[in-house]
Amino acid sequence: MSSAFQPLSAASSVAGEAAGQAFTFPPSQYLPLDSGERLSPLSIAWKTFGRLNADRSNAVLLCHALTGDQYAAETHPVTGKPGWWSTMVGPGLPIDTNRFHVICSNVIGGCMGSSGPHDIDPATGMPYGLQFPVITIRDMVRAQAMLLDHLGIATLACVAGGSMGGMQALQWASSYPERVHAVLAIATAARHSAQNIAFHEVGRQAILADPEWSEGKYQTLGTNPRKGLAVARMAAHITYLSEAALHRKFGRNLQDRNALSYRFDADFQVESYLRYQGASFVERFDANSYLYITRAMDYFDLAADHGGVLANAFKGTQTRFCVVSFTSDWLFPTAESKKIVHALNAAGANVSFVEFETDRGHDAFLLDVPEMFQTLRGFIDSVAQARGIR
Amino acid sequence: MSSAFQPLSAASSVAGEAAGQAFTFPPSQYLPLDSGERLSPLSIAWKTFGRLNADRSNAVLLCHALTGDQYAAETHPVTGKPGWWSTMVGPGLPIDTNRFHVICSNVIGGCMGSSGPHDIDPATGMPYGLQFPVITIRDMVRAQAMLLDHLGIATLACVAGGSMGGMQALQWASSYPERVHAVLAIATAARHSAQNIAFHEVGRQAILADPEWSEGKYQTLGTNPRKGLAVARMAAHITYLSEAALHRKFGRNLQDRNALSYRFDADFQVESYLRYQGASFVERFDANSYLYITRAMDYFDLAADHGGVLANAFKGTQTRFCVVSFTSDWLFPTAESKKIVHALNAAGANVSFVEFETDRGHDAFLLDVPEMFQTLRGFIDSVAQARGIR
Repeated sequence: MSSAFQPLSAASSVAGEAAGQAFTFPPSQYLPLDSGERLSPLSIAWKTFGRLNADRSNAVLLCHALTGDQYAAETHPVTGKPGWWSTMVGPGLPIDTNRFHVICSNVIGGCMGSSGPHDIDPATGMPYGLQFPVITIRDMVRAQAMLLDHLGIATLACVAGGSMGGMQALQWASSYPERVHAVLAIATAARHSAQNIAFHEVGRQAILADPEWSEGKYQTLGTNPRKGLAVARMAAHITYLSEAALHRKFGRNLQDRNALSYRFDADFQVESYLRYQGASFVERFDANSYLYITRAMDYFDLAADHGGVLANAFKGTQTRFCVVSFTSDWLFPTAESKKIVHALNAAGANVSFVEFETDRGHDAFLLDVPEMFQTLRGFIDSVAQARGIR
Repeated sequence: MSSAFQPLSAASSVAGEAAGQAFTFPPSQYLPLDSGERLSPLSIAWKTFGRLNADRSNAVLLCHALTGDQYAAETHPVTGKPGWWSTMVGPGLPIDTNRFHVICSNVIGGCMGSSGPHDIDPATGMPYGLQFPVITIRDMVRAQAMLLDHLGIATLACVAGGSMGGMQALQWASSYPERVHAVLAIATAARHSAQNIAFHEVGRQAILADPEWSEGKYQTLGTNPRKGLAVARMAAHITYLSEAALHRKFGRNLQDRNALSYRFDADFQVESYLRYQGASFVERFDANSYLYITRAMDYFDLAADHGGVLANAFKGTQTRFCVVSFTSDWLFPTAESKKIVHALNAAGANVSFVEFETDRGHDAFLLDVPEMFQTLRGFIDSVAQARGIR
């Protein structure tokens, strides 16, 4: 395969700029990174949903997961599908856009308009590729704080996110406690486990194994490591589900046939489903972004930044926390949420914890789980009340 | 990469023939396959450990797992490492070669001397590649039965195996009940689950994505899909362990460094370990064999061959069964073993079931688990007693 690389950020840049929601900071406002490097210029693309009120007290920041983006509650410009949290965010929904001003920005390292490896490196005039600096969850959050400064929003009613979004929400509470009234952290962890690092490493190696990855220079060379990225997605996708859900949805059902083919076709529905997940993912995501963002998640270890004691990350916090997990989530199991809760308790924080019974695995945070919506609505309503948001 | 393909079976063929333990059946003795095709000529490579007694009552058949081979209790000719079950099989060990004549053959589809996709297709004079017929667990067992006929061994004291080896052991009890006194089935299932099929499909797609796979004709073309096979192995290897074991062994420990590199090097020990697993695997295994054997496992559904009722697979059985599982095995969890046990109970079979507490995951069946050895020694001793083996 040697089809020309389609810069995936193009569509979003157009969409983002049409709504005035992309900004490139002047060189003086560079982003200092945990690595010691500086990212400049820093570009951020974001979307907003609902109006900012007069006293600027009703802002909610949504943090997206590994392969998410700013299209939380709006049709995705590439896939044409509903936003990733369109069940949660909107008029009358738990995060009610009639009351809240919801902001969602593409993370740095991403491929939907914020600075990432697909950008032009000012030092060379060529796409960064692997010359883009390695970034961390804290760097992502630091960039979001710069965006809020740019938007003139001093404090947030809530920072909410699932999976990597939950990591960012926890990092927000730790880095900028005075700016965060409440945190909603779903299906997440305060550090990435060895098993999760291992799965990410498989995905990265699948990309690096694709000769079209071309040492990360595929944009320049007109190649595209679609096959490697698809394999990475397939491996990851299994971890987002549960054994029980896979059994319920697919079992050993055959795809479009009555008997085994005795060939290497996708005999089983689960094979066909996985192949589709891989093939559709590469239409909307960038391989180098996948490398950078998985690396950021692997590097995440909130306690390590605080002498190895997680409670110290939240010392003296006034933020209210709601921590949520799902019984069948084996990627970010309940035990990880409980570690967060224990640390918050040790720090004397105001924290609620709920584990929802579901067989839908890690992806449950993106799905229609009525009990979760009901609980989160209660938490968010109480945040609105405390902040005087009507 | 375009290094010439090294036929991995070469070393073993030499070793096997030196011990007189490889045989190619005459064309009249073809292997009938579940697909309806015939495999001819059929070659089988095997090893034996311990002597056959005068009344030929002390034969034990070991069935190997996906990436295993006939070198169960002997130094591996390619890796130079001890045999895969050298803790279990040998003088004075639970499967005691002072008492038993242990036979272990490379499965058909494999790459250590038995017929597989690397063989020359008599129809074309070229290596089979994907022209090799798709095979099943039952085909593997049928080939083993032909080997036993060739060796003049009518009945087996025991058929033993873990994982795919356990599938074969169950198939033996179902296909040839009168030939099997006892079955030892460890960390296995009577059918492959949707999640397990999904993981196998990721591995296959990783191989197929490697351009050096060359539509399966890499032997002829002098290429070798090493990178794809390594990615397949890495993904699979995670499933052989447990989250707890990965945490205990590696956690977030860094490899040969004191701080994060902020690069894509293997910062974490678990990354380095996985890369090693992938790289060393491709030195001893063949990519097409990996496709065929994973397919055979995915196709395995013992109940499906018996009207969907697993108990019917064991109807009227006189075989004694020992079924073993491990608490932390999420690839072949205890629930799968219990389904086997329930079916055996429904068939009125003599069955023991033991679940061992360990954090070592699926691979525990290959490891030094003293409690397991003790239990299995008891089971095998009782088999010896019943068969009058001293």
